[in-house]
Amino acid sequence: MKVCVIGVGLIGGSMAIDLKESGYATEIIGVDIKPDNLDKALRRRIIDRALPIESGIAEADIILLTVPMDAMLHLAPFVLNLVDRQTVIEVGSAKQRLLKSLEDHPQRNRMVAAHPMAGTEFSGPEAALPKLFENKSCVLVEEGATDPDAWVKGLEVFEALGMRIVQYDPAAHDLHAAYVSHISHISSFALALTVLEKEKDEKSIFAMAGGGFSSTVRLAKSSASMWAPIFEQNRDNVLDVLDEHINSLAKFRSYLIKNDFEGITELIQKANHIKKILG
Amino acid sequence: MKVCVIGVGLIGGSMAIDLKESGYATEIIGVDIKPDNLDKALRRRIIDRALPIESGIAEADIILLTVPMDAMLHLAPFVLNLVDRQTVIEVGSAKQRLLKSLEDHPQRNRMVAAHPMAGTEFSGPEAALPKLFENKSCVLVEEGATDPDAWVKGLEVFEALGMRIVQYDPAAHDLHAAYVSHISHISSFALALTVLEKEKDEKSIFAMAGGGFSSTVRLAKSSASMWAPIFEQNRDNVLDVLDEHINSLAKFRSYLIKNDFEGITELIQKANHIKKILG
Repeated sequence: MKVCVIGVGLIGGSMAIDLKESGYATEIIGVDIKPDNLDKALRRRIIDRALPIESGIAEADIILLTVPMDAMLHLAPFVLNLVDRQTVIEVGSAKQRLLKSLEDHPQRNRMVAAHPMAGTEFSGPEAALPKLFENKSCVLVEEGATDPDAWVKGLEVFEALGMRIVQYDPAAHDLHAAYVSHISHISSFALALTVLEKEKDEKSIFAMAGGGFSSTVRLAKSSASMWAPIFEQNRDNVLDVLDEHINSLAKFRSYLIKNDFEGITELIQKANHIKKILG
Repeated sequence: MKVCVIGVGLIGGSMAIDLKESGYATEIIGVDIKPDNLDKALRRRIIDRALPIESGIAEADIILLTVPMDAMLHLAPFVLNLVDRQTVIEVGSAKQRLLKSLEDHPQRNRMVAAHPMAGTEFSGPEAALPKLFENKSCVLVEEGATDPDAWVKGLEVFEALGMRIVQYDPAAHDLHAAYVSHISHISSFALALTVLEKEKDEKSIFAMAGGGFSSTVRLAKSSASMWAPIFEQNRDNVLDVLDEHINSLAKFRSYLIKNDFEGITELIQKANHIKKILG
C-alpha cells in the first residue's frame, strides 16, 4: 500500500514509522508546507520521498491528513477534490465542525474520520516515535458516510498500528474528548501558568519538580498551534467541563478555608476512584 | 551502618532498598504499626528484621522516620525521647509546624530534617522501588539545629540514594513545596473529580485516557491518609497557590467565553515556558 502523509509531524511521522515497520505500507510519501520538516523526515527515513501535494495524492492509495485542526478545515476539502479511488484518513481531535463542513462534499465517501487517542507533548518529525499508538484507543466516527472499501482500509491502518477501535457519533466524540482529553490539557497549561506566576525562583521549580509536578505539567509543553484550534472547534464542550473543573478546585478551597480536613479526605478518596477505571 | 526504618511504606521501603544495595546499610530493621506491612517487607527482603519500636531504635545507628505527617507530629518527639547517640532522619513533606513543635526538645540536635522530592502515586511496602530517589533533589533544613556528626550521616544517606542536596529554611521549604508539589496534587485530584463528575461513562474515560489524561491524573491515585495531613500542615501556602490556580483557569474560561483564541494562544505560549525550566 502506498501511503501519503500530509503533515509530517509527531502524529503523521509516528503513523508512518509503524505502517512501514509492520509491512502495511510499501512506500511512504511525505507532503508538508515546511520544507524543513520534509528534510528532517527524509533524514530520519520516516518518509521515502517528498512530493508536492497534488502528485503525492495522485500516487497514493491511502492519504493520511495529520495537520492541526485549523489547517484541517481548509485542507480536507482541498484533498477530497483531488481523490477518486483513494482513501483519505483524517485524524483530527475535534469532529463536529469539520464533518459538518464536509457533509455535502461529493467525495466525502472516500474519507475515514478518526481520532487515534495518543500523543506526546512534543511536535515535529523529530518527535515521531515507534509504537506510539500500540494498545491505545482509536475513535472512528460516521461509518455510514464512508464507502465500505475505504472504511476497511481505515480499519487496516489502525489495526496495523495496534489500536483498539471505538465508535462514537461526532457529537459524542467531541463531548468525550473534551471531558477527558481536552480538559487535561487546560488543567496542565493552567498548572504551568500558576507555578510560573507564584514561583519566581526557577531553581526551586527545578528542585521541587520531582514531587509529581513534572508529570502533571507534562502536557503544558504542548504547542499552541495545535491546541488553540482544538479548543476553538470544541469550545462549548470545553467550557462546560472547565466550569466543572473550576468547581472541583473551589471545593478544595472551601474545605481549606474552613479547616475541614475530613472534607478534604473525602474529596481525595472520591478522586481515588479513578484508579479503578484506569488500573 | 544499622538502619531502622519506622514506617515501611513507599518512601521508607524505597530508601531501605537503595541503602542496602549501596552497601551503606549493613542491616535494615523494620518498625511499623501494621504487622501486615512488616510481613510484606520481610517477604520482599526490604527489611532484614522486624522489631518493636523501642528495640529497633536501641539497636540502630540511623533511624528513618517515614510516616504520614499526622503521625509524624506524635512520633518524632516520642522517638527523640529514646535516642542518645543515634541519628534520626525525618522526611516529612511539610516542615514548619513539625520543627516548631520540636524546637525545645532536648534531643532535637540528633535529628536531620529532610524532604526527598520523589515518590509515586502508590503506597505501602509493595510499592517500594529501587532508584526512586536517584538524581532527584533532597531539601535539607535547619542545619544549625543538628549536631555536625548527625548532619554528616544525613548527607551520607542522601548521597547513597544518589540525591542532589538543596538547603532552605523551613518557611521557604513549605512555600516552595506548596507552590510546586502540593498544588500539583490538588490539581490532579480536582481533574479526577471533574472527569468522574462529567463523564459518567467509565468506558469512555478508559478509551479517551491515552490523550494525556492518564499522566495528568496520575497523582490523583495518591492516598488521602498521606495528603490530607500535608495540606493541613501547609494550609496557608496551599490556599495561596490554589487561589492563583483557580485564577489561571478563569483566564482560559474568560477567553473561551469571549471566543478570543489569540488570548488562548498567548496563555499556552506562556505556559510553554515551563519547558525551558524542566528541559
